[in-house]
Amino acid sequence: MSEVQTKGKAAKAASYELMGITTAEKNHALELIAGQLQADQSYILEENAKDIEQGKDRGLSDSILDRIMLSEARIKDMADAIQMLVEMNDPIGEVLETIEKENGLSIQKQRVPIGVVGMIYEARPNVTIDAATLSLKTGNAVVLRGSSSAKFSNIALVKSIHTALEKSNLPVDAVQLIEDTDRETAKELFRLNDYLDVLIPRGGKNLIDTVVRESSVPVIETGAGNCHIYIDESADKKMAQEIVLNAKLQRPSVCNAIESLLVHSNWFKENGKDLLEKLAEKDVQIYGDKTVTEAFSKAELATEEDWHAEYLGLTISVKLVDDTKEAIDHINTYGTNHSEAILTEEEGNAAMFLQGVDAAAVYHNASTRFTDGSEFGYGAEIGISTQKLHARGPMGLPALTSSKFFIKGSGQIRN
Amino acid sequence: MSEVQTKGKAAKAASYELMGITTAEKNHALELIAGQLQADQSYILEENAKDIEQGKDRGLSDSILDRIMLSEARIKDMADAIQMLVEMNDPIGEVLETIEKENGLSIQKQRVPIGVVGMIYEARPNVTIDAATLSLKTGNAVVLRGSSSAKFSNIALVKSIHTALEKSNLPVDAVQLIEDTDRETAKELFRLNDYLDVLIPRGGKNLIDTVVRESSVPVIETGAGNCHIYIDESADKKMAQEIVLNAKLQRPSVCNAIESLLVHSNWFKENGKDLLEKLAEKDVQIYGDKTVTEAFSKAELATEEDWHAEYLGLTISVKLVDDTKEAIDHINTYGTNHSEAILTEEEGNAAMFLQGVDAAAVYHNASTRFTDGSEFGYGAEIGISTQKLHARGPMGLPALTSSKFFIKGSGQIRN
Repeated sequence: MSEVQTKGKAAKAASYELMGITTAEKNHALELIAGQLQADQSYILEENAKDIEQGKDRGLSDSILDRIMLSEARIKDMADAIQMLVEMNDPIGEVLETIEKENGLSIQKQRVPIGVVGMIYEARPNVTIDAATLSLKTGNAVVLRGSSSAKFSNIALVKSIHTALEKSNLPVDAVQLIEDTDRETAKELFRLNDYLDVLIPRGGKNLIDTVVRESSVPVIETGAGNCHIYIDESADKKMAQEIVLNAKLQRPSVCNAIESLLVHSNWFKENGKDLLEKLAEKDVQIYGDKTVTEAFSKAELATEEDWHAEYLGLTISVKLVDDTKEAIDHINTYGTNHSEAILTEEEGNAAMFLQGVDAAAVYHNASTRFTDGSEFGYGAEIGISTQKLHARGPMGLPALTSSKFFIKGSGQIRN
Repeated sequence: MSEVQTKGKAAKAASYELMGITTAEKNHALELIAGQLQADQSYILEENAKDIEQGKDRGLSDSILDRIMLSEARIKDMADAIQMLVEMNDPIGEVLETIEKENGLSIQKQRVPIGVVGMIYEARPNVTIDAATLSLKTGNAVVLRGSSSAKFSNIALVKSIHTALEKSNLPVDAVQLIEDTDRETAKELFRLNDYLDVLIPRGGKNLIDTVVRESSVPVIETGAGNCHIYIDESADKKMAQEIVLNAKLQRPSVCNAIESLLVHSNWFKENGKDLLEKLAEKDVQIYGDKTVTEAFSKAELATEEDWHAEYLGLTISVKLVDDTKEAIDHINTYGTNHSEAILTEEEGNAAMFLQGVDAAAVYHNASTRFTDGSEFGYGAEIGISTQKLHARGPMGLPALTSSKFFIKGSGQIRN
């Protein structure tokens, strides 16, 4: 058997053991992991240094190297995050539905672990810890497949997890790392229906698209965000400026930052130039439609590609529209169903927009940057789902659970 | 554009219109459909007769022809089922979660339609009506792709739906039938991620396996049921006989009928022969392990394939085990995560079994035949999910919904 097969099978067996584990046992194991990461700190940093060195040799950019880099502070952050997870409620066992039948059958729908969670991800080694500990908290086994650029770090982190699990009541096999980062091991995971119950990709658009296209294991699609703000005719000028600058600039590289601005043509006549000037002052490159480029000389003409683009940087597209309906149609055509906002003083237009835009999170008079597990109060999150099945939007612990009907009888048969 | 592309695109556009439709408008449309089916009865029966004639020419079996066959009574059943659907609660708009943030943001998670539901199914034309009306009730558009053997019937039924929708406030494009039943149109649906939000296969194991393997559209896997009953040492003899006979014989062709019996060896010594004799009296063919065949001469020796088999007929496999743990392991190895039962007077063994068996529905002292939307009180069901994401077990109306976060602010930006 290949590494993927062997480790997938071991994870599946561990997932059955995890079905009988208590909340206290899971929390104890998580605390052991938090402690072990700090105990193993110097070893982890040594291994991480190898990834950094190799990355420099390969010519990785400073921003990617920064994502891979670990430090005492970052290891402490991981341990702190695990401690927060310990304090969160355990969703497993929650009763979702109770049905008492006339024939005496008692049916209870309870939250149970999913089983085995597969994670395919890029660069950041902290995903290794996040995915493993979120999975364990929800009683799942996990099969991790990180990228070659963080290979030494991931091996060291999982070694530390295994040391901790050996001292716990949880099976060590509950956390598996695929060490071979060849493309073929990813393909094997896509077809590992016998052992994986779900596959979650985290990373760039290419990775996510490939997983969605090729995986026969059920996928939760996360992440890509071509997010818009629509400034309606009645929008408050100052509020619009503050929200647009925040949604574009507070952290331009993330999925819930905006990439595109739709502006009611009447609002634009009055206030458009001021707003675009403020963006340009912050070095934002603007691609606009014809009217926008005519009104604002620093803007360049947008192409069809711009309406589709997730820039993830200091670039924005700007298009004028004549009403809320046109804004909704544009977003439903070009958006990625992530986070979309309307700025307006007209409740009717707000309601039409919130209802009509097909996205995980829709905002009235607020920045799209709030679409985040921690902002919603879910604590740690495994990603932000942009698909519509199972989970949509920020995924808290319940997104890593399934359900099961428990039926108790006293000899009932069906007529 | 191909038929699949054109109709998929039209369904997507209709799904956006459906977002703003009220419960009353949906129910009115459903009532129009129920009425129209009865008004068009003679035309529908004429078209159905063509399918039957063609099926006979092709040499289809009587049982398949019976599945395709419509009659006045069956059309009335369809209309009655639609009337029941009208009376069911509309899940759309249900508030699933409310989060009030300190910064004044108000976050509400609401149930919304999924968007466009794709259905691929075999034979029975009533699935056309079920899928269309369940989708409309939940505000979804639907793309239907039935089999060639029910082609004339499906076209007639959808024509009737369209006539009704024209008189309603719902878009006619909300219900699309792919008339070309060539294999290629199924493949196109597997890749129609731009327009389909989910694809649900209904039919035999081959169809379902193909869809799961090949579809990049998210799939809800339904149906296959290699269901077991485990008779524990302490099981009541009379109860065990009644439940086993019911679960095997009440309707052997359905997915929640049992295919395999696991029997504690001590119980078997006392009561095994009597039970097997009762099955044999009802013409059930028994494949057993070595001890079973030695004790009961009418049993033949089971092969590895028998433990995997979903017979869907008068056949059963029987294996002796030494304890509950061995039964659980066998089921988790060979089962299809559908419906599994333990018969026992020992609460501890029951709890271990219900917890440890990985299935949508787990039973203590009752027949597996209850895994059914109508038995659970969900009314109409679109299928029984045997996967763990989104929906598990009988799928009622909520299985055809997604969720969306509605966030209302007054200028909030993220720090």
